Amino acid sequence: MRNIARAPFRFFSLIAVALLLQACAALNGAKAPVGQVMGTGDLGVIIERATGSVLIVNTSSESILHRVEGLGDLSHASLVYSRDARYAYVFGRDGALTKVDLLTATIVNRVIQSGNSIGGAISQDGQYVAVSNYTPGGVRVFRADTLEMVADLPAVAQDGQQGKTVGLVDIPGNKFVFSLFDGGETWVLDMTTWMAGDHEAAVTKYRNVGKQPYDALVSPDGRFYIAGLFGEDGMALLDTWYLDKGVKRIMGDYGRGDKKLPVFKMPHLEGWAIAGNHAFVPAVGLHEVLVVDMNTWALVQRIPVHSQPVFVMARPDGRYVWVNFAFPDNDTLQVIDTETRQIVHTEKAGDTVLHMEFSPRGERLWVSIRGDNQVCIYDTATLKRQSCLPAQSPSGIFFTDRAHKTGL
Amino acid sequence: MRNIARAPFRFFSLIAVALLLQACAALNGAKAPVGQVMGTGDLGVIIERATGSVLIVNTSSESILHRVEGLGDLSHASLVYSRDARYAYVFGRDGALTKVDLLTATIVNRVIQSGNSIGGAISQDGQYVAVSNYTPGGVRVFRADTLEMVADLPAVAQDGQQGKTVGLVDIPGNKFVFSLFDGGETWVLDMTTWMAGDHEAAVTKYRNVGKQPYDALVSPDGRFYIAGLFGEDGMALLDTWYLDKGVKRIMGDYGRGDKKLPVFKMPHLEGWAIAGNHAFVPAVGLHEVLVVDMNTWALVQRIPVHSQPVFVMARPDGRYVWVNFAFPDNDTLQVIDTETRQIVHTEKAGDTVLHMEFSPRGERLWVSIRGDNQVCIYDTATLKRQSCLPAQSPSGIFFTDRAHKTGL
Repeated sequence: MRNIARAPFRFFSLIAVALLLQACAALNGAKAPVGQVMGTGDLGVIIERATGSVLIVNTSSESILHRVEGLGDLSHASLVYSRDARYAYVFGRDGALTKVDLLTATIVNRVIQSGNSIGGAISQDGQYVAVSNYTPGGVRVFRADTLEMVADLPAVAQDGQQGKTVGLVDIPGNKFVFSLFDGGETWVLDMTTWMAGDHEAAVTKYRNVGKQPYDALVSPDGRFYIAGLFGEDGMALLDTWYLDKGVKRIMGDYGRGDKKLPVFKMPHLEGWAIAGNHAFVPAVGLHEVLVVDMNTWALVQRIPVHSQPVFVMARPDGRYVWVNFAFPDNDTLQVIDTETRQIVHTEKAGDTVLHMEFSPRGERLWVSIRGDNQVCIYDTATLKRQSCLPAQSPSGIFFTDRAHKTGL
Repeated sequence: MRNIARAPFRFFSLIAVALLLQACAALNGAKAPVGQVMGTGDLGVIIERATGSVLIVNTSSESILHRVEGLGDLSHASLVYSRDARYAYVFGRDGALTKVDLLTATIVNRVIQSGNSIGGAISQDGQYVAVSNYTPGGVRVFRADTLEMVADLPAVAQDGQQGKTVGLVDIPGNKFVFSLFDGGETWVLDMTTWMAGDHEAAVTKYRNVGKQPYDALVSPDGRFYIAGLFGEDGMALLDTWYLDKGVKRIMGDYGRGDKKLPVFKMPHLEGWAIAGNHAFVPAVGLHEVLVVDMNTWALVQRIPVHSQPVFVMARPDGRYVWVNFAFPDNDTLQVIDTETRQIVHTEKAGDTVLHMEFSPRGERLWVSIRGDNQVCIYDTATLKRQSCLPAQSPSGIFFTDRAHKTGL
């Protein structure tokens, strides 16, 4: 009888184990998919540009949580966050759009949506992710949940030529704005109208905004879209509160001027710092940070700096701006006091400083130093380096508080 | 033999079920403690003032996820968020400080820290939660993780009397600022210095700032601390970039004036709306919203409104401000265009509108309507009500993007 009993024991043991595993998987699936129960407000992602990987980091513990691999060519990558701050949408140079889950540290979806992309944005309501492409030139829009494509806008300008798109941002009203580098145009895409099926009414095109818009930014309130021009001095301004008033040229004294010094790296306009009523702007090709009055759009001061600035980033309280520089001076960081407009700090930070990101409330600054394979964390009150974390050729640093901001 | 086999089958079935439940619990426990694997960027908490409960809500699905009970007297409650946006620190009227986990929908810690408290703040680094108390008058500071008390500052003014504290906020540099209603003082508490043990140097006291400061606000950049005065006209301004310059009086033409109309409800200064260079301010005791130039602190316009304003809240892009009103006109909402400064919308929203909160990027406004036992959600582009959610006497609404903001 013991033998007889043993057979069912073994049999039911196997069943029990199988059931156990299956049921646990089901339970986990229902209640808690693989992944951590944790808040996502203090997380971030760092691009590792040479290895097609990203690091998931925590700004409270100032530590690396995970590495996620398999994202392709990240040599000029950026990302935006879902409105729950759980997913990062990574825009790769190879045209890939990759959705990374910060809680499971996995790639949950990935589409190769073009041959060469340059950046993207997420709509105000969090439902749509738009990607700006060089090849083929245009903008494509995807559902944030499934990455299903819902809009495909080839960047065909008035002259019939299709070209590169740049300066893609989101603005309030669930709209995207972007510019055509080759065609010299700025387009506004209203997602609400587009999804209602009226594709023609959904797109507003501004012709002849200026020669070769190369990047753009939106003021922090989401109102003013400003495109930098590579082909001429000045910038192109669109007041998105009054779309019918069109694009006007501002800051004719901003630009490369007659001398046209070589530009070692195009500055990133997304990094413009806005403190009080003034924007602090990297001059293109000059060793200057420019100060612009945001009420009049007049250039009010030129601050001489170490070299050609790349990112000019304001601490969230606007009291200081931090500046990094183009090759061959990309080992240096400078800090400018926005009231006195004096440089208050200069240091050699390391081999090739590529990007900077403030912690959400500004007490820390994370700096990616590509050649040293590390990301270093500064106390923004003392300006002292606190610690460094190892990273493989780190470039862009993005914290999840961006989920709640417009125009990034 | 079939009978013999059946016994172990039943026996092992029971074991299997028991094992299954135990092991699943263990698995869930190890990988994912009770609670949901989900992002916290689109969550929020609504105070149910009459029942000592709070609702945990989701701003993406626009739905209620959970109710958490047992928070005591929430008749004048507010809260702040941990920097990971997982925990809410709820300040109850009964002096309780309750830490609520949004992912497990449970109270994870609770201390009765005074007899009567009025609000609180969380430090820039997220490590310290400060509570402003009426009885006994003073401020107490707790570790955000354990709720262990680390600072106890009785509000004893220059005259030796202990009184109520008001207008407690955080500012950059890991500092708290608050005012003494009875003593007419403003104090700054530097948490870094305090935790280093130098308690005397940690507290800076400004005497005679004005009669009866009743509430305060900080400009969105965290720079200017402005206390409203109940005992006289004007306000008290502290420029926290230059703490040695002291407190100065501004806006002598702001206040109740000679007539001193009865004030049905003190306006909340935390709700000040700042659009461009102008603050939109609820007038105390008057049917006006005041417009203040933030460069000069001059009163530039008085906008007549429906009744005595309570909250004057700017949509995140600053284009419109929404206003609710004091008893007996608390059924009404008005919307002001910040450029034309005209009222563009008036509606009867329901029985007793108590609070409003914009979704992080401003496409929606949630409005608590106490008497109707519901929270209604508006599309801020069309100004149309989209839906309502049931709630028990709802008052304050707080979304987790507050975790990343200064001075709330």
